[in-house]
Amino acid sequence: MTQTRVFPVARLRALGVRLFTACGAPPDEAAMVADELVEASLMGLESHGVTRYIMYVEEVLSGRIHPGAPVRLVRETPTLAVLDCSLNFGQVGAMRLVETVCAKARLAGLAYGVTQRCHHVGRLGGYAQKVAEQGLFCLAVANSHKQGHFVVPWGGREGRLATNPLAWAAPTGGVPVVLDMSTSMIAEGKIRALMHAGQPVPPGRILDGHGAPTTDPKAFYGPPRGTILPLGGELGYKGFGLGLLVAVLGSTLAGEALTDEHRFVNGLGLLAIDPGPLCGADRFRQLMDELCAYVVSSPPAPGFDEVVLPGALDFRGRERRLREGIPLPAETCRQIAVAAKKVGVEEELL
Amino acid sequence: MTQTRVFPVARLRALGVRLFTACGAPPDEAAMVADELVEASLMGLESHGVTRYIMYVEEVLSGRIHPGAPVRLVRETPTLAVLDCSLNFGQVGAMRLVETVCAKARLAGLAYGVTQRCHHVGRLGGYAQKVAEQGLFCLAVANSHKQGHFVVPWGGREGRLATNPLAWAAPTGGVPVVLDMSTSMIAEGKIRALMHAGQPVPPGRILDGHGAPTTDPKAFYGPPRGTILPLGGELGYKGFGLGLLVAVLGSTLAGEALTDEHRFVNGLGLLAIDPGPLCGADRFRQLMDELCAYVVSSPPAPGFDEVVLPGALDFRGRERRLREGIPLPAETCRQIAVAAKKVGVEEELL
Repeated sequence: MTQTRVFPVARLRALGVRLFTACGAPPDEAAMVADELVEASLMGLESHGVTRYIMYVEEVLSGRIHPGAPVRLVRETPTLAVLDCSLNFGQVGAMRLVETVCAKARLAGLAYGVTQRCHHVGRLGGYAQKVAEQGLFCLAVANSHKQGHFVVPWGGREGRLATNPLAWAAPTGGVPVVLDMSTSMIAEGKIRALMHAGQPVPPGRILDGHGAPTTDPKAFYGPPRGTILPLGGELGYKGFGLGLLVAVLGSTLAGEALTDEHRFVNGLGLLAIDPGPLCGADRFRQLMDELCAYVVSSPPAPGFDEVVLPGALDFRGRERRLREGIPLPAETCRQIAVAAKKVGVEEELL
Repeated sequence: MTQTRVFPVARLRALGVRLFTACGAPPDEAAMVADELVEASLMGLESHGVTRYIMYVEEVLSGRIHPGAPVRLVRETPTLAVLDCSLNFGQVGAMRLVETVCAKARLAGLAYGVTQRCHHVGRLGGYAQKVAEQGLFCLAVANSHKQGHFVVPWGGREGRLATNPLAWAAPTGGVPVVLDMSTSMIAEGKIRALMHAGQPVPPGRILDGHGAPTTDPKAFYGPPRGTILPLGGELGYKGFGLGLLVAVLGSTLAGEALTDEHRFVNGLGLLAIDPGPLCGADRFRQLMDELCAYVVSSPPAPGFDEVVLPGALDFRGRERRLREGIPLPAETCRQIAVAAKKVGVEEELL
């Protein structure tokens, strides 16, 4: 069993701000990055949470993240935007894209924005959620660069897409509905975690380097490197088609070639729709509440306690972690301290 | 083995025009309906093809389809549209929605339209394809009314959503990429076909009326009526979240309550994006071609001959059926003749 330590949210956030400032980010941008990563940890998505302090510092030190680089709209109409993120932290570009599509959608009813040269944006659902918290419907996608192409196309045995998440969110009378899902059978980070824990991958998720089904995480990492199957099992053409949708909405429409290795890490696409001109903002919230109540009114299936809406469990976990703190494995704490030291920040996470 | 007859496309189309005209549709609208259904048969989706001649005539005779009813934009901005289809044939409303979002997207860069009181629209992918054939990216969804709520929410055992298809299409240098998929493990029509053929449903697709897994199609039809699982198997929260997305984009944003039983059959939502202002129309097509070439360049997995793009096999089948004709089971031919006779059209499909 891995040893775990629990930290107050404020401490981890403050550490993040110090780290990214030490990396050269302006204080407001350092805060954006720390906020997004802490929020992902709060929502229970630790793979996109505080753990990433380590990777982000390394990416800065190796010159792949450019702290403080200008984030500029390179193409813009009243409804459309292409945002060049200049390989600043992905969160800085993503927050700017959220602002951009929200402002445009409020004026034009509808807006779509997409990034160029965007680094890792972290938890995709967080951006959809922010748009929904402004009363708008949001569809969000995050494409990934070629080095992340672990996922085979349906009927293929070489990776051609990443785990390509898509998310959507809509306002309700309470917390928004937030779906945040990869279009593959498993995330790469989860395979790594299973390998470290000495556990098998559930069947039907991955192939080894020769294209044969396996449950052994080591067979995935090879060499030769294995692959991940698209969402759907025998219906994997659906997951493949959804992954391709993410590629088109997240990169192709921005004019980014999928096979360009070093131009971007994520390609973020955000669509925002203002329900106001369509059916009225109040009527929309009311219908969302009715829809949600109808769906969760189904009695639970055997083995389940209740029907929950997309994101509902994450919001509950967030409340708990806000009170109790964010748990981190001891090894993660050690690695964060090592990374911090490299940029002159001394902090033992004990 | 079911006996099958093969008919030239022109004959089935002409029969459809006569049928729907006899039902009271203006000739141009009768042609739209026949064209869409014949096209679905050509693309190999017979469940949404000429077979539907039977159901549509019955729906007219029972007063649920209103041929010739006015299709009107009830809310409209330069980017948004709510179209009241007045329970005319769904295809008539859908074609009007395609025109509307294409015209708006060409002017505004981006448009979203959604229906009210829309009857069955047939093959969803066909509308996405039509938008793509005009050089635009399209995302399309079709929600369904309460009587079609066969699909359980994740963790539930009563139906709360329909098989809620979503589709997307994008132009390339050749035929468009067209994904058209339900967000469930199987379509209801396919369960019925398996029952008629005396075959089991593949495991992991349906539950019986008590919420227990089954492969017996009769256990699905009950009573008590069984249910269909959302796409994803153990990851069914993804299919559930996608099904809910279809409900929101296909009905809720139009101000339609999901639980209103008789207001609509389908809720159609169409999003169109003009790549021109984002990256240039030519650059987009070129990048789509590069993306497609990259994806299909994966060597095939064991048991597959090649990697194919979403829709590619349907376009190949269409070419074959255009040459060879459309096959229909003898029983379908008999039922079409019976329905035709009810509206005074004498045609034996022999």
